[in-house]
Amino acid sequence: MKRYEQLAQDIADMIKTGVLAVGERVPSVRHASKTYRVSPSTVYQAYYLLENRGMIRSRPRSGYFVCSQPQQAVPRSKSSPHTLKFTDVDVSELVFSVLGSLRDPDIVPLGSAFPNPTLFPMSRLARSLANATRTMDLHSVVAHLPEGNQDLRRHLVQRYAIANVQVPLEEVVITDGALEALNLCLQAIAKPGDLIAIETPAFYASLQALERLQLKAIEIPVDPHDGIDLQVLAKALKKHPIKACWFMTTFQNPMGATLSDDKKRELVSLLTRHQVPLIEDDVYNELYYGRQQPKPAKAFDSEGYVMHCSSFSKSLAPGYRVGWVAAGRFSRQVERLKLMTTLSASIPAQLAVADYLQYGGYDRHLRKLRHTLEVQQNQMRTAIDHYFPKDTRVTRPEGGYFLWLELPENVDSLELFNMALQEEISIAPGPIFSATRTFRNCIRLNYGNPWDARIERAMKTLGKLASSF
Amino acid sequence: MKRYEQLAQDIADMIKTGVLAVGERVPSVRHASKTYRVSPSTVYQAYYLLENRGMIRSRPRSGYFVCSQPQQAVPRSKSSPHTLKFTDVDVSELVFSVLGSLRDPDIVPLGSAFPNPTLFPMSRLARSLANATRTMDLHSVVAHLPEGNQDLRRHLVQRYAIANVQVPLEEVVITDGALEALNLCLQAIAKPGDLIAIETPAFYASLQALERLQLKAIEIPVDPHDGIDLQVLAKALKKHPIKACWFMTTFQNPMGATLSDDKKRELVSLLTRHQVPLIEDDVYNELYYGRQQPKPAKAFDSEGYVMHCSSFSKSLAPGYRVGWVAAGRFSRQVERLKLMTTLSASIPAQLAVADYLQYGGYDRHLRKLRHTLEVQQNQMRTAIDHYFPKDTRVTRPEGGYFLWLELPENVDSLELFNMALQEEISIAPGPIFSATRTFRNCIRLNYGNPWDARIERAMKTLGKLASSF
Repeated sequence: MKRYEQLAQDIADMIKTGVLAVGERVPSVRHASKTYRVSPSTVYQAYYLLENRGMIRSRPRSGYFVCSQPQQAVPRSKSSPHTLKFTDVDVSELVFSVLGSLRDPDIVPLGSAFPNPTLFPMSRLARSLANATRTMDLHSVVAHLPEGNQDLRRHLVQRYAIANVQVPLEEVVITDGALEALNLCLQAIAKPGDLIAIETPAFYASLQALERLQLKAIEIPVDPHDGIDLQVLAKALKKHPIKACWFMTTFQNPMGATLSDDKKRELVSLLTRHQVPLIEDDVYNELYYGRQQPKPAKAFDSEGYVMHCSSFSKSLAPGYRVGWVAAGRFSRQVERLKLMTTLSASIPAQLAVADYLQYGGYDRHLRKLRHTLEVQQNQMRTAIDHYFPKDTRVTRPEGGYFLWLELPENVDSLELFNMALQEEISIAPGPIFSATRTFRNCIRLNYGNPWDARIERAMKTLGKLASSF
Repeated sequence: MKRYEQLAQDIADMIKTGVLAVGERVPSVRHASKTYRVSPSTVYQAYYLLENRGMIRSRPRSGYFVCSQPQQAVPRSKSSPHTLKFTDVDVSELVFSVLGSLRDPDIVPLGSAFPNPTLFPMSRLARSLANATRTMDLHSVVAHLPEGNQDLRRHLVQRYAIANVQVPLEEVVITDGALEALNLCLQAIAKPGDLIAIETPAFYASLQALERLQLKAIEIPVDPHDGIDLQVLAKALKKHPIKACWFMTTFQNPMGATLSDDKKRELVSLLTRHQVPLIEDDVYNELYYGRQQPKPAKAFDSEGYVMHCSSFSKSLAPGYRVGWVAAGRFSRQVERLKLMTTLSASIPAQLAVADYLQYGGYDRHLRKLRHTLEVQQNQMRTAIDHYFPKDTRVTRPEGGYFLWLELPENVDSLELFNMALQEEISIAPGPIFSATRTFRNCIRLNYGNPWDARIERAMKTLGKLASSF
């Protein structure tokens, strides 16, 4: 550890232990230089580091002051604006170990991000695949590089139109799943060192993308009912050079929160005012249990600042890797990045989905799928009620297939993850959803598996383990 | 190889090495039949084949004569060691305008990077696709994230083994085409500002990748026969902090050069000594015309510094987007990047290729494809001889489907590109293959299209345009 890092650490410890209180002035550079016997430039470096970590803040002509520190995030309480931090993201190792646990078919996959493939019309899709490739136009192999199959893109624009979202055909680029779409969007607008606003808790792939592209995160708290805190966001936009936001506006992973239409409109207008693009991850949109499909923020975007990303992986065709983006004013950049990085999505998969959308009965399948997921949510909530510690709190999302649990304070979800794995159960521990490794007593559970005795048993075991802390 | 093919090969070798000179009479059928101890009909077949390839021509009642071959010597790239520059790469706009020209089916696609899809067993593949997805194991959707289908990877390792390259199964990751493989390798080992050695001329996608990732290029000249200049590379390695090399060691795009086994061995040992990884782009390897498949540099890699990238897009399944990488000591990093950026390649496409490799007759298809491409090369070379300016120089690659033409000094290939486009012909102008926009009087032509009157006409027009400078 370098000298200034050591110094920063010492001061951070003082802050954490309350030796330096919130709002208190940090020793002046001159004073610190004397006290710690280091050069003034070392002190500056240390203070700069602490500032970057959001622990202290400079006030012009007054020096540095201790910021209020983030509270342990709690599902129903909103974190306050002062808790914002810029964070170098480094969460991958943890995520990989969780994902690794899902490869073994003997493990009960409650930690999985994927719904069970038996929920999807795989054999009907295979028929579409066979039909479509039999009659495949050979020229199409190069004609639609990189934006993707014309029919598929037309179907998407039609589905947007039905949902009352006007998207021109030229804006739509087919991608290798939504994950590629999101990554391309991020690359199109940010370069190393840039600051990106994400949710906390956030989908871990967004954390990994930031890590990979050497971007910095500013975490905006999510309320399980209302979604991200727009006031915190508004303040952050004023104060910091935020380059883009990456948010899930509907059935947010992992919390399940959905922004109301009004809030979505407000979000878009706020970002448009600041000319900050929104990368909207909307992969669960079709999995709503209510009467109406939630609108994406994209529906309120008149200036083209919303890059709407989604896929068929969660609603129709897992493993086919067919996603898309409608990237507004950034479409050309995204299209070019697609061409440069993976050229085009797999053509047979695109043709199969296009054929299925035309003839397969997508909406009938979706109605069935939504009903199934809603029933399974209730089964899992009931099991939590039976088997888990009394003061466990759990979300009740109106779509998707994740529950977010806040376990009693003393439960360490990383430890719980290891204990559960011994029992051949996988869970998603809270810290993988945060750049700052918070949510230590939280877990995400997947109810996208048909309820059966094996799952019931796993929930019972898990509840017992959680009670053992 | 059949008897007549063997004989044709022997005579072709004599022509290539000058044993049989241009204009010289080829031995009479009777004479050859005696000399080579084959039946006269075998000789006829061989001569017919050579005629088809444009190497000999019959004159009524006089027998067969060696055709004039277009001059083959394209001089080595001129950069000398002291002209090496670090270059910020910025070639994309140019490349996009060339690629854009290929979307219209009315344009003769001589500038295309893709072979004509009619050369591939698309309907047999579609059958494999239908078979494989009908019996698809649902668990496989998540079980092989991100490294890809187990059967497909086993087939690849077997094909490596047949080519005498030992690659452990764990090293192989399936990607969305070779382009993704190459990009992942680059990301795994380089960060913005790093210096990458590339060829000059180079495949433009490597230039675009460098541009996108904000890397700097150092250009190593390529000789059309022997490939990259190892002496220049050795000096550059000593002098500059080169982070990685991105080379095509076999049938280099655009020049067609292939490094000999000895040179490949030397290259690997040089890079291993400097601990500099080689990203080996080897997508044309299966398209050899000679007797033996060229070995990749990977064959000589004992320390794991070679990241071998290839795909089925040029040899079997264009549009399926099935590629792979065997990334040596960097496999884990590449695997993780794959997981973070696109999760996995499309599963139906992977299953289809695996099924085809098992049952489809890949090697039979490849033999036919190689023969077709060799014949088409001769047809195009003959057309160049007829229609192009006298001092045009052209390569004679022993595989792939590109010719590289050096036109007279005063020809501006960018202007020629625009003129040709007016005539509905696309070509690939030299400057898109260079970070420094050199090769102004060079073009790349694709002979991966079945020869017909339309192509012949296009060549005639192109020759006329080139002569008009």
